[in-house]
Amino acid sequence: MSGGTGGEVGGRMRVGVIGAGAMGQAHLAAYAALPDVEVVGIATKTRERGEALAARFGIGGVYPDAASLLAATRPDGVSITTHDNDHVGPTTLALDAGAGVLLEKPIAGDVVGAEAIAAAVRRTGGLLIPGHILRFTLPYQRLKAEIVAGRIGDIVGISARRDRTRWVHERYAHVHPAFLTCVHDIDLALWVTGSRVVRVRSMEHRAPGDAQPDIVWAQAELASGAVAMFATAYLHPSDVPVPTSDRFEVYGTGGVATVDLTTPELLIHASPTTAPDWLIGLGDGTGAMLAEVSHFVSCLRAGTSSPVIGVEDALAGIRVADAIVRSAAAGGGDILLEA
Amino acid sequence: MSGGTGGEVGGRMRVGVIGAGAMGQAHLAAYAALPDVEVVGIATKTRERGEALAARFGIGGVYPDAASLLAATRPDGVSITTHDNDHVGPTTLALDAGAGVLLEKPIAGDVVGAEAIAAAVRRTGGLLIPGHILRFTLPYQRLKAEIVAGRIGDIVGISARRDRTRWVHERYAHVHPAFLTCVHDIDLALWVTGSRVVRVRSMEHRAPGDAQPDIVWAQAELASGAVAMFATAYLHPSDVPVPTSDRFEVYGTGGVATVDLTTPELLIHASPTTAPDWLIGLGDGTGAMLAEVSHFVSCLRAGTSSPVIGVEDALAGIRVADAIVRSAAAGGGDILLEA
Amino acid sequence: MSGGTGGEVGGRMRVGVIGAGAMGQAHLAAYAALPDVEVVGIATKTRERGEALAARFGIGGVYPDAASLLAATRPDGVSITTHDNDHVGPTTLALDAGAGVLLEKPIAGDVVGAEAIAAAVRRTGGLLIPGHILRFTLPYQRLKAEIVAGRIGDIVGISARRDRTRWVHERYAHVHPAFLTCVHDIDLALWVTGSRVVRVRSMEHRAPGDAQPDIVWAQAELASGAVAMFATAYLHPSDVPVPTSDRFEVYGTGGVATVDLTTPELLIHASPTTAPDWLIGLGDGTGAMLAEVSHFVSCLRAGTSSPVIGVEDALAGIRVADAIVRSAAAGGGDILLEA
Amino acid sequence: MSGGTGGEVGGRMRVGVIGAGAMGQAHLAAYAALPDVEVVGIATKTRERGEALAARFGIGGVYPDAASLLAATRPDGVSITTHDNDHVGPTTLALDAGAGVLLEKPIAGDVVGAEAIAAAVRRTGGLLIPGHILRFTLPYQRLKAEIVAGRIGDIVGISARRDRTRWVHERYAHVHPAFLTCVHDIDLALWVTGSRVVRVRSMEHRAPGDAQPDIVWAQAELASGAVAMFATAYLHPSDVPVPTSDRFEVYGTGGVATVDLTTPELLIHASPTTAPDWLIGLGDGTGAMLAEVSHFVSCLRAGTSSPVIGVEDALAGIRVADAIVRSAAAGGGDILLEA
Repeated sequence: MSGGTGGEVGGRMRVGVIGAGAMGQAHLAAYAALPDVEVVGIATKTRERGEALAARFGIGGVYPDAASLLAATRPDGVSITTHDNDHVGPTTLALDAGAGVLLEKPIAGDVVGAEAIAAAVRRTGGLLIPGHILRFTLPYQRLKAEIVAGRIGDIVGISARRDRTRWVHERYAHVHPAFLTCVHDIDLALWVTGSRVVRVRSMEHRAPGDAQPDIVWAQAELASGAVAMFATAYLHPSDVPVPTSDRFEVYGTGGVATVDLTTPELLIHASPTTAPDWLIGLGDGTGAMLAEVSHFVSCLRAGTSSPVIGVEDALAGIRVADAIVRSAAAGGGDILLEA
Repeated sequence: MSGGTGGEVGGRMRVGVIGAGAMGQAHLAAYAALPDVEVVGIATKTRERGEALAARFGIGGVYPDAASLLAATRPDGVSITTHDNDHVGPTTLALDAGAGVLLEKPIAGDVVGAEAIAAAVRRTGGLLIPGHILRFTLPYQRLKAEIVAGRIGDIVGISARRDRTRWVHERYAHVHPAFLTCVHDIDLALWVTGSRVVRVRSMEHRAPGDAQPDIVWAQAELASGAVAMFATAYLHPSDVPVPTSDRFEVYGTGGVATVDLTTPELLIHASPTTAPDWLIGLGDGTGAMLAEVSHFVSCLRAGTSSPVIGVEDALAGIRVADAIVRSAAAGGGDILLEA
Repeated sequence: MSGGTGGEVGGRMRVGVIGAGAMGQAHLAAYAALPDVEVVGIATKTRERGEALAARFGIGGVYPDAASLLAATRPDGVSITTHDNDHVGPTTLALDAGAGVLLEKPIAGDVVGAEAIAAAVRRTGGLLIPGHILRFTLPYQRLKAEIVAGRIGDIVGISARRDRTRWVHERYAHVHPAFLTCVHDIDLALWVTGSRVVRVRSMEHRAPGDAQPDIVWAQAELASGAVAMFATAYLHPSDVPVPTSDRFEVYGTGGVATVDLTTPELLIHASPTTAPDWLIGLGDGTGAMLAEVSHFVSCLRAGTSSPVIGVEDALAGIRVADAIVRSAAAGGGDILLEA
Repeated sequence: MSGGTGGEVGGRMRVGVIGAGAMGQAHLAAYAALPDVEVVGIATKTRERGEALAARFGIGGVYPDAASLLAATRPDGVSITTHDNDHVGPTTLALDAGAGVLLEKPIAGDVVGAEAIAAAVRRTGGLLIPGHILRFTLPYQRLKAEIVAGRIGDIVGISARRDRTRWVHERYAHVHPAFLTCVHDIDLALWVTGSRVVRVRSMEHRAPGDAQPDIVWAQAELASGAVAMFATAYLHPSDVPVPTSDRFEVYGTGGVATVDLTTPELLIHASPTTAPDWLIGLGDGTGAMLAEVSHFVSCLRAGTSSPVIGVEDALAGIRVADAIVRSAAAGGGDILLEA
């Protein structure tokens, strides 16, 4: 894979950012921390926001859409941070233009979209890194390493819980929590086991009139024989300081390994009291966001696919998230998936 | 209800302990802390152990079984701490003898046994307090009080997790974890919601050749519309200091309330490192064990039933535990229960 | 020791409560949970509050002061919960009247007062239990038991930290934090070591114009050769849910034992988010408050002094708190105390 | 600053590692993760270990000392990881040879050594980055950022505690804990306050016959008027899984900010149970070690001094650590330092 005008050793990589919402800004902040990267353009329908960001990050071009950005700047790569249901178009355009793609999660809003994206990657042979940011954090990386090293024997169970506040419920009323939150833990489960989900059932709680449930609790069986649970709820009050509750527990025949992010490293007891999410570091482009973006640039520069994650991994996760949604909608019965 | 020779205001209550295992000893230690209680006898098939305990706690009589203890001592009440599958006989005898009963959990090893016990209570009108010890601890009592006070609105979900070590898996190979561990959380769920479970499904992991599963993860629906999860796993290494992991989370329309006993109040970093389970205080008859036994004595003295818990509560829990076992055994399908 | 009209086996103990502030109400709530205790009177200068409490708890008499309560009701015992600087008078009166005393901490606002109280106890031979409530909680009791059992070898260091919010700084502007907060940890240190403090030095931070410091950090040496730290700060924001931070760490030649109450067992994520202080249970008279009051009643009934704590223990603590105040006031130099 | 044969944009930076102990290996692992860096030599007196490391990391040259490495390879920079008391020589040689230096902490074993190193930096104008690794971790960086942003108002107190196991006490019998451990927190305190320590007093506990104390508790006053505590103890049992206890608390007029690393993100419940120190990532050159080494390389490449930390910062910390040692040795009296 290679494209655009750059890529030679020592030069600056030229990237674009498509989408200028919260995630687009996080990508911009991360790129800004990399001296060997130049952001050559932002694509957004909201021209004013694009120009404000261009001014803030010292970027030349603001474009109304992916096509014009790609045509005008011929970037080495692009971050795509548009709405989940608006991923297929810009991704396909970028891959066809020879640009590598860092694609925010979930890679698509449904299975059909994810399959279209996977097909475009196969067809073009381009670089596409799904933005499954937790694979770029040390706790989960070391969890994977410990498991591979045999520290807890064979995996027989995985229990994941990731709760959020009501604010998330209101802010993301267009996305099912299985796609928004569980998709992280599904990906981690597939990653650390190297297996596939073959059976899913789930239940949910949904308040009358709500577009999305506020509780989603799923059970799954893996081809390996392991069992799994994926839980998320959006019921914590929004004005409460950081009730993070992210736990990922792996039960093995030789022990149990747990990543637990419940206790914040840094806690500010002031008004309001907050615990900066430094592991991710979305807002300021530090932490895992910086690691993810750096990895993308390294892959672009090297002209290789990512050893960390590929589009097929993301597609597998989307299929499980979709099964969780369908099972709950159908009253909780089993959904079978191909091994 | 009233019986035996005592019960008058100001006299000492006369109790017996039937069963001399770990739980029997815990009851003896708790009674020993109550100056207004006299333990008049121990019933055990293991005469040597009975005599050692009698000497240690200054108790006059050791009897080979419940019937002889009841006949010889005519106690006001008895603690029954025999094997789960040996509860029906001594309980019925005690109730027929007019003695109140403090019965260890699970009140029976199956639904048939639990129903027989409930029938005996109804027939005799005697006092029977199921030993659901967590109802006698302050965190859960306050959780209940906060919920009743409306602090988190209407309950829409309950998530419970209570893991144990492999040692428990080996030591209690004759009891399904749903009866041994989940029964605690099922009881708490029924208690704090005041509702009933109407649908259960579960999955488990069981190692080849094992009598019991080492993972049990159940889902349930309540008549109120709330959803529930009950999880337990016995996979933590036995030589590891206290990986307690007991969480009970209640999701409401107005917030989330959590009892989390993961972090021990007292931790001894020595060899071995331990965290005394002071909340329960089984070993030395302090903590919740003392509170439970004291409550039993108060009810005996007052001649009333318990406002905290009755046999019907325990029977409801046994029915859910039984449904968890059956669902997993049948491949995870739904089990419907009467509302 | 014995007094009043009661004390015979089986009768109800007759007690009075002197002081009707927050602590007085906590004592009343605890007595109300004891069926074998009758509260015969409340003494308070605030007649309206006294009558409201009398109505709430079903108490006959409201008196303007300790003397009139003692004369009118001749109680077996009294709880004294008046202002720290108003302890000597009512305590001496009660002891002289033959009533046992449960005296809130600090037992006096200064060393002179504490010595006067100790002298009254010696002179009358009466029962006086200082309300060092932490000695009545299981975590610290088990810490003591583990230390006595030799689990961590010989004690070489004790580190205590107990922070509070600015609200406490404002509410208790008349009490130095060494007397208000450190006095708990000083008492625990003396209790678990069985030693004496021989040298103290401390430093503090005090905002311009403030009556009391908002940081007090003291160092001490014990006769045993162990070193100790006592730290308290009142700088956490008052509108923040429960930044409890109570740690008591004992370093021994064979290990380290820690009581850490930072993580609440019960957390209510609602508006506002709170963590009930169930260990103490002040507000509703449960938890350690109930245990303390029950112990007082048991000692009254038995006519013995308390095996848990006596006035000399409290006096020793007051002397250390006083040395902490004086050292900081003098620029941090050493204060020597008798071994 | 610039030197050696490299440094041009786009070329690989050429570095050497002086010292092949645990820290030397950690630096090698971190450099190995940087594709744009070439390690051109290792200097160690232990030839066999050097050759093993050279083979493992694919490095050409093994040298008996700093001088021969510098002469033979003319590196752009070197990591110096020799014994604390053997820092002055190799550091001076490297700076004189025009190589930048990444110098492990403490930068010297005493004040005289630290001053000699600071003088060499001033004289040569070279790059020297003290390896105060915690400045390269996100929790502390964000703590600094929040303080600078005024989130907790003016700093009035800092409380730091960092305990280690007896293993550290035995392994580092040649280093006083003030230099080994407190030096981290002293540096953080100076960093976040931007102030200086003007007064120090400390006490310690030392077992008979021990070369170093096992408890060091220091108090300090800053020029700003803030008070500080630095505590470390090496009494936790060595066979216990990760009793990390690192807390750094900043009390301000507007709130309290805490970095607490007590709860591990990843916990492996197996035999043995461990919590990988992923924040630092020493062993495998990930985490903060990688961030520190990357920063060093960036400074080398840019030819600038470090905006994060300089030799004067480290010197200030050494002076405080030295005062802690002297105060305790002299019975705990005040040591005054220049503002």
